[in-house]
Amino acid sequence: MIYLDNSATTPPYPEVVDSFSKVSTHYYGNPSSLHQFGMEAENLLTRAREQMAELLGVQSKEIIFTSGGTEGNNLAIKGVAFQYQTRGKHIVTTTIEHDAVHRPLQQLEQLGFDVTYVPVDQHGFVSTEDIESAIRPDTILVSVIHVNNEIGSVQPVIEIGKMLKKHPKVVFHVDHVQGVGKVPLNIREANIHLCTISGHKFHGLKGTGALYIKEGVVLSPLLSGGSQEFQLRSGTENVAGAVALAKALRLTMDHYQKNVHRISAMKEQLIKALEKHDGIVVNTPVEHSAPHIVNITVKGLKAEVFLHSLEKKGIFVSTTSACSSKKKQPSKTLLAMGRSEEEADQAIRISFSYLNIEEDVNYIIQSIFTSIEQLKEVMRDSR
Amino acid sequence: MIYLDNSATTPPYPEVVDSFSKVSTHYYGNPSSLHQFGMEAENLLTRAREQMAELLGVQSKEIIFTSGGTEGNNLAIKGVAFQYQTRGKHIVTTTIEHDAVHRPLQQLEQLGFDVTYVPVDQHGFVSTEDIESAIRPDTILVSVIHVNNEIGSVQPVIEIGKMLKKHPKVVFHVDHVQGVGKVPLNIREANIHLCTISGHKFHGLKGTGALYIKEGVVLSPLLSGGSQEFQLRSGTENVAGAVALAKALRLTMDHYQKNVHRISAMKEQLIKALEKHDGIVVNTPVEHSAPHIVNITVKGLKAEVFLHSLEKKGIFVSTTSACSSKKKQPSKTLLAMGRSEEEADQAIRISFSYLNIEEDVNYIIQSIFTSIEQLKEVMRDSR
Ligand SMILES: Cc1ncc(COP(=O)(O)O)c(C=O)c1O
Ligand SMILES: Cc1ncc(COP(=O)(O)O)c(C=O)c1O
Repeated sequence: MIYLDNSATTPPYPEVVDSFSKVSTHYYGNPSSLHQFGMEAENLLTRAREQMAELLGVQSKEIIFTSGGTEGNNLAIKGVAFQYQTRGKHIVTTTIEHDAVHRPLQQLEQLGFDVTYVPVDQHGFVSTEDIESAIRPDTILVSVIHVNNEIGSVQPVIEIGKMLKKHPKVVFHVDHVQGVGKVPLNIREANIHLCTISGHKFHGLKGTGALYIKEGVVLSPLLSGGSQEFQLRSGTENVAGAVALAKALRLTMDHYQKNVHRISAMKEQLIKALEKHDGIVVNTPVEHSAPHIVNITVKGLKAEVFLHSLEKKGIFVSTTSACSSKKKQPSKTLLAMGRSEEEADQAIRISFSYLNIEEDVNYIIQSIFTSIEQLKEVMRDSR
Repeated sequence: MIYLDNSATTPPYPEVVDSFSKVSTHYYGNPSSLHQFGMEAENLLTRAREQMAELLGVQSKEIIFTSGGTEGNNLAIKGVAFQYQTRGKHIVTTTIEHDAVHRPLQQLEQLGFDVTYVPVDQHGFVSTEDIESAIRPDTILVSVIHVNNEIGSVQPVIEIGKMLKKHPKVVFHVDHVQGVGKVPLNIREANIHLCTISGHKFHGLKGTGALYIKEGVVLSPLLSGGSQEFQLRSGTENVAGAVALAKALRLTMDHYQKNVHRISAMKEQLIKALEKHDGIVVNTPVEHSAPHIVNITVKGLKAEVFLHSLEKKGIFVSTTSACSSKKKQPSKTLLAMGRSEEEADQAIRISFSYLNIEEDVNYIIQSIFTSIEQLKEVMRDSR
């Protein structure tokens, strides 16, 4: 079995599952309780927050724990919108955001906000100039994905952040969910105000995540109540989840150098082989792309059919993003890049993790070629 | 060590932690992925949902998984408000709600909604008549807590639900977080449209919960994105958390009869002994109160000081609700019942779980009495 759907989700590190179990069992106190059990839990939470902050190069009071990437994005976007709406109701974003950014923006549009979707070029990149041109006096937020989840293109968020220094009233949010542990991002250098990360994309647990909130940025909370997490995210804290998230991030960062080279090498080998096949178009740009994602269009073959053919060979990939695949929507990113509906319908995403091994790449390549042959044959026969 | 802060949070069942670990490790697929790994995860999620529904006596499509009670309450309240605001902007609630209901309502007030806070009587009960009187033609939501988290009073939600049948356009939300496994609630009979539950209050895991959403009720999602959970709660599903939640609910329900009698008996024994002491006022009503909560005012002694005195004797209790205790706010519920700030400042909450044993009750009683003596003495000496 070769799992190549790591952009959808990753298997958690065994140590992470272990920490979660231990903390849940032995430190079950409510961090808000005044007795020793509460304090022990609170100390663990504080330490997890400090670890996260250190690993991300920010202050610990700038980290809040969430239930995942979708919550982080929704809190960032709606939190800014509701907080700063008296200042303006215009938001700038791109056409290749994940639905967890796109849908909250659509909800805001229904509430009277105005959103500019800046287009990308044929390779899947937005330009800093185009973002800047979209900014108006009433712009309160710019939200840009770091690593696109479908094709892996890396957006110029550092450049955009630097440009935004000229627009000090605009809050800058980055969806870093696919970037963590793959494409380093210096949050401070990039002048980012809000940065979303999600545990299960880097071998942490589902239901865990964090939002970086730069000191001074105020958000209207999405989950209000007992005032936990600096009043920005109420609810009894998932202490075990926070500890598990910090551990997953640490393990990921610790092994970054080693893993990223191995993964990049596998990706390059794969792309080199696939782009020679005239039935395949490689959609992932060679430059400025994440080390773990390879997106291809297999001409004339429906992605879902192709996916199941690879599955029979023990290889697990995805069609577009996981959440769009059930709805059988064509890849939004490919459409935004100017590809036809048909091309977008035939796209397959192959995404690696540190658990994949070099030895498998040839088998993967061969399986892709064989699947193409087999399916073409079936189609010829059924004509 | 005697843990009596079960209204703040409970230790998880070992089986629940175990299930979480197993599912996280072996079924890590994204339920939205089209391959076998995705399907296996999806099947587990579906089974967890079916189990929850069966245990709650509702349909499985009426259950969505959340990250806890605060999310459930926020989604219910804001979801109705944003969805039905064109119909009206008036909401009815009580003065003894948890902050996870109270604060979202305050946020809505800032956005132009009008909230009526129906008062309670001196015993901590709201009346159905008062709720009904508060309803206006523009009322879209009634939100009532089932079991109050500070004193344990059980609100007449069944009666309120039946009354609301006369007002078919009003959505009825019940915060059932403290009631699960303690005070049975027939969601259908009570005509409830939205019902919040939270895993860690019944020996499940923090970061898990569910919201019952009656078929036909539409909510504007708080977390939008990949359209998971019937489009009402996006984000990669915490499959292991859902399985763990269903397991915790099943174990709780399975042992309900046995445990509830034991816990009630301990509570009665405790109340009987404490109410004889003339330095103590028992705030929990004798009738219509949950089996697990005993709230007392220890006259002339600051709750926090008293808490630490009991802690030295190995007994862990709380001052008011966990989330208010850090803020040193007096008990909101006691103030709503007409008690003075001073009385509210001197309130202690003792909350049992199935893990407490009858043999400990005498020690608890004695420790309370001794603590009162000791602290009074200190105060006399320091005068
Ligand atoms: C770029 C991006 N943003 C946000 C999300 C949402 O994260 P989560 O599923 O943890 O809610 C995902 C993955 O689903 C993603 O790939
Ligand atoms: C009555 C009540 N409602 C809601 C909540 C919030 O639940 P959670 O802490 O799981 O978010 C609590 C407990 O904190 C509660 O006691």
